[in-house]
Amino acid sequence: MAKYQIVLVRHGESEWNQKNLFCGWFDADLSSTGIEEGRNAGKMLKEKAFTFDVAFTSVLKRAIKTLYLIQDELELHWIPVIRHWRLNERHYGALQGLNKSETAAKYGEAQVKIWRRSYDIPPPPLEPTDPRSSTNERKYQEFDSSVVPAHECLKDTIARVLPYWHDVIVPTIKSGKRVLIAAHGNSLRGIVKYLDKIPDDDIAELNIPTGIPLVYELDENLKPIKHYYLADEEQVKAAIERVANQGKAK
Amino acid sequence: MAKYQIVLVRHGESEWNQKNLFCGWFDADLSSTGIEEGRNAGKMLKEKAFTFDVAFTSVLKRAIKTLYLIQDELELHWIPVIRHWRLNERHYGALQGLNKSETAAKYGEAQVKIWRRSYDIPPPPLEPTDPRSSTNERKYQEFDSSVVPAHECLKDTIARVLPYWHDVIVPTIKSGKRVLIAAHGNSLRGIVKYLDKIPDDDIAELNIPTGIPLVYELDENLKPIKHYYLADEEQVKAAIERVANQGKAK
Repeated sequence: MAKYQIVLVRHGESEWNQKNLFCGWFDADLSSTGIEEGRNAGKMLKEKAFTFDVAFTSVLKRAIKTLYLIQDELELHWIPVIRHWRLNERHYGALQGLNKSETAAKYGEAQVKIWRRSYDIPPPPLEPTDPRSSTNERKYQEFDSSVVPAHECLKDTIARVLPYWHDVIVPTIKSGKRVLIAAHGNSLRGIVKYLDKIPDDDIAELNIPTGIPLVYELDENLKPIKHYYLADEEQVKAAIERVANQGKAK
Repeated sequence: MAKYQIVLVRHGESEWNQKNLFCGWFDADLSSTGIEEGRNAGKMLKEKAFTFDVAFTSVLKRAIKTLYLIQDELELHWIPVIRHWRLNERHYGALQGLNKSETAAKYGEAQVKIWRRSYDIPPPPLEPTDPRSSTNERKYQEFDSSVVPAHECLKDTIARVLPYWHDVIVPTIKSGKRVLIAAHGNSLRGIVKYLDKIPDDDIAELNIPTGIPLVYELDENLKPIKHYYLADEEQVKAAIERVANQGKAK
């Protein structure tokens, strides 16, 4: 029997998703579609009478805003919200800010697919002197510069998400608090990979749709009993396809 | 010389302010005017290049939303936000939900003024069985019921704000973090009374305008060197008058 239940939500569309740019740690805002997706995620949770005691999110506003919209729908402005860079999106290194279609046209769709979908091949790093580099941002300056990445493969992202999962989120779940996590495609992949023991070779093909709450029921040892989306199969499928098609040359 | 600087912001107009109802711990939303006030507070801070490392607020959405609007203007979604009931508005007891003009007509403007403006005379308590009671709300249930008030005079409010100021906010300021506090007329009165050593008899007449950032410069012992509003004198005066006129019989 399920002892715990957590909900994961991938942020809604950002202005950079819309422009088909590699976003990563760039702090793009939600698009109007993304705002609607955030509100809808809140409505889906409300309809099923979900509530939460605490929420975790990244330090990127597209996730924080998605969470805020959910809180607004659920009348949960008051719950503690804990932000951490370890829940950030994968750092796309030198690709950040480039148009995905242009990058595909330049390097070939295969190379872009490798950078996007391989488990352990990172794109080139973003030099610290590059104006697109995050290491200069105030929000990362309290951390040792050696832990703040300049580029990441999916493996790297997962490796920095899991300590936060184990050290902070798991104890919160075990304390009996109902946990909501509003984060990003790749940081959520890390959690899902760990929970469902998904092999390295398969995780990159797992696409979590944006703005559709993903519920995990966990036993007393936090092993998943089942998981499901708060939307019907057709909606989920359509949403996954939209996400999977990003980065293909147009 | 000032060693520290903190900024206090009183939340913008709520839907209940607009209807002239005693609000207290009722979780009224911001009105459209209140939303604009929140944004404007953010713009005033941005214009003067203020930034913050951490923000404190209450567990009432009119303060949390005001803070969020300021964060949005300042691009500070990522800073830690710490919510606590000790920064809540004064609990208005049995007056909560009553129309201020009606209450004035019923009890007389003098009695309402006593309840609103005396230092140590609380209005009648709100019984725990009353649907308007907060003690049943989930956000207060983790606390001992004896500390969650059913009514408060201004003295009571200040007495529960100050432990939070001393135990949580002061150490944060002393750690060098730049602190923003988005709260309520009476919880902010508590902080201002303490900082400026305002006598009991005078504090109720001190009106902090909504949505205008109030800056305190503090020395190394957190003694105020000076304070000022981020608006010109006329704007501040007009805003104070609007607030002071609430609760007069119409």
